[in-house]
Amino acid sequence: MTLHTRFTERFGVEHPIVSAPMDLVSTAELATAVSRAGGLGLIGGGYGDEEWLSRELGAAAGTRVGCGFITWSIDAGLLDIALSHEPAAIFLSFGDAGPYVEQIHRAGVPLICQVHDLAQVDEALRIGADAVCVQGGEAGGHGKGTRSTFTLVPEAADLIAAERPEVLLLAAGGIANGRSVAAALALGADGVVAGTRFWATRQAAVTRGAHARALAVNGDSTRRTSVYDIVRGKTWPPVYTSRVLANDFVVRWHGHETELVGNLDAARAEFSHAVEADDVDLANMIVGEAVGQVHAIEDAGDVVRSMAAQAESILIGAPRERPPGT
Amino acid sequence: MTLHTRFTERFGVEHPIVSAPMDLVSTAELATAVSRAGGLGLIGGGYGDEEWLSRELGAAAGTRVGCGFITWSIDAGLLDIALSHEPAAIFLSFGDAGPYVEQIHRAGVPLICQVHDLAQVDEALRIGADAVCVQGGEAGGHGKGTRSTFTLVPEAADLIAAERPEVLLLAAGGIANGRSVAAALALGADGVVAGTRFWATRQAAVTRGAHARALAVNGDSTRRTSVYDIVRGKTWPPVYTSRVLANDFVVRWHGHETELVGNLDAARAEFSHAVEADDVDLANMIVGEAVGQVHAIEDAGDVVRSMAAQAESILIGAPRERPPGT
Repeated sequence: MTLHTRFTERFGVEHPIVSAPMDLVSTAELATAVSRAGGLGLIGGGYGDEEWLSRELGAAAGTRVGCGFITWSIDAGLLDIALSHEPAAIFLSFGDAGPYVEQIHRAGVPLICQVHDLAQVDEALRIGADAVCVQGGEAGGHGKGTRSTFTLVPEAADLIAAERPEVLLLAAGGIANGRSVAAALALGADGVVAGTRFWATRQAAVTRGAHARALAVNGDSTRRTSVYDIVRGKTWPPVYTSRVLANDFVVRWHGHETELVGNLDAARAEFSHAVEADDVDLANMIVGEAVGQVHAIEDAGDVVRSMAAQAESILIGAPRERPPGT
Repeated sequence: MTLHTRFTERFGVEHPIVSAPMDLVSTAELATAVSRAGGLGLIGGGYGDEEWLSRELGAAAGTRVGCGFITWSIDAGLLDIALSHEPAAIFLSFGDAGPYVEQIHRAGVPLICQVHDLAQVDEALRIGADAVCVQGGEAGGHGKGTRSTFTLVPEAADLIAAERPEVLLLAAGGIANGRSVAAALALGADGVVAGTRFWATRQAAVTRGAHARALAVNGDSTRRTSVYDIVRGKTWPPVYTSRVLANDFVVRWHGHETELVGNLDAARAEFSHAVEADDVDLANMIVGEAVGQVHAIEDAGDVVRSMAAQAESILIGAPRERPPGT
């Protein structure tokens, strides 16, 4: 018994579960493990390192995976590299995907647009997205942080039903396990995109120090900030902040961004050293609120299967518990 | 067929649906309508106006309702007034409920503590709450705004199961309709507390102008701020902000709180005039992200019944759609 949705049908997968294309973290190893377990794995093309991208897409050859990018940082050439590998989907986040729609559709590849509020859902429908992934502010990494998964999913579902009912809806932000999958489907999603939960697997390109810290903290331990964009010299559009572990570095600099810019050389040296040393008190650890529900670093395929089984038991298994005669 | 949960059983109600004790908005008329429809209605004692409280509790006599307060603003005398009416529950939010636990339990009344992050769940369990209501930052009105309903509910469910499994869990923040109820139960809650959805009913003490605006905006239209606390002279503990309609007043003053304090007399005069004139471009309209799923001002009893029916259809009705043979 499995959860069939419009997403599983349209994408020809067994479970309505997608692993997020986390920049450099979502390798071929992670994406293929997710796809082989019956979900859809996405490679994290991020800011667009061509060498990394070609290597990972090559390594995934033979398994159906997709690929995601940070829209404002890419160009058509990079997309051509991805499209030449016939990905299962292109997943674009943060910025105007409009200029790339024709190129992606010409290649016969479905476009998933990740968005963060209702206005952006409307825009994604207008430009011709095949699926919209709405991401609540509880998610790790970048986002607008102004809407939550719990309200954005049903409101997006209603808007899609009214405007372009053939478009699929995926829910992201806070997807930790089968309870979240069941809840997202109950709210009107056709499937889910999980980041942190797959970040916390053996196949993700994550350091030992970061994985160990994830097991030690609860969901109160993250916050949205721009301090790591400043120290890394990433010029994000100002509406986007990033949810990360609220470590010593964040506590010191968040709210003091002007002073950070004034001390940039020293802060950069400290940050680089922390990254080298796997010191997550200072290096950026990009996780969402779902980190509080991570209790082990598991195999990514097992995560897909256990999420699906738990969601099925909640949504389909429930009637077994109905009292007789009702 | 109805959704039986530990909450419906323990509180002897038909549906696991509670109307939030919104300050002065949740009148006897609203609370009794909710209770008569099979939910649990709460009267909004708020900051503790004794005359208002006695009148509303008196008006609700004969129907089982509870009563809620802003903890930091009340005293034992006010609680005595509430307890003398034998409420179905006392619901305390924002601040340390510890000093009131014995008084409430001596009266044989269950205590529901509303909290906003996992640390506060732990504290509520420690002081002896009978039920914990976790409220995500998507909710209207005050809260910490640091956690979301989607992740806080399951994490709180796990903590409660580990520490004091007899304690009930209610979910608040973003509860708009039966989809939200089904999702909250899937995430591990025993019931829900809805504010905005009951604010948008004929029984709520809400102005025509505010109700009309609610029907015209979507869920992107709110934000968390303290500007109305400043202009109303309400000295909230600094960790709490309030989600309200992001109207002209909020856009003008949010982020410019120092200037607001410097212009307080003029701003207060403008605010008071706007309240008198039912001008929601300037007066405070306290709604959460769920306002985007409000499409009519309905009868509160009908809201309870339709929420319950839709949740039942999602959680129990689902198997009817299973393909034959599975």
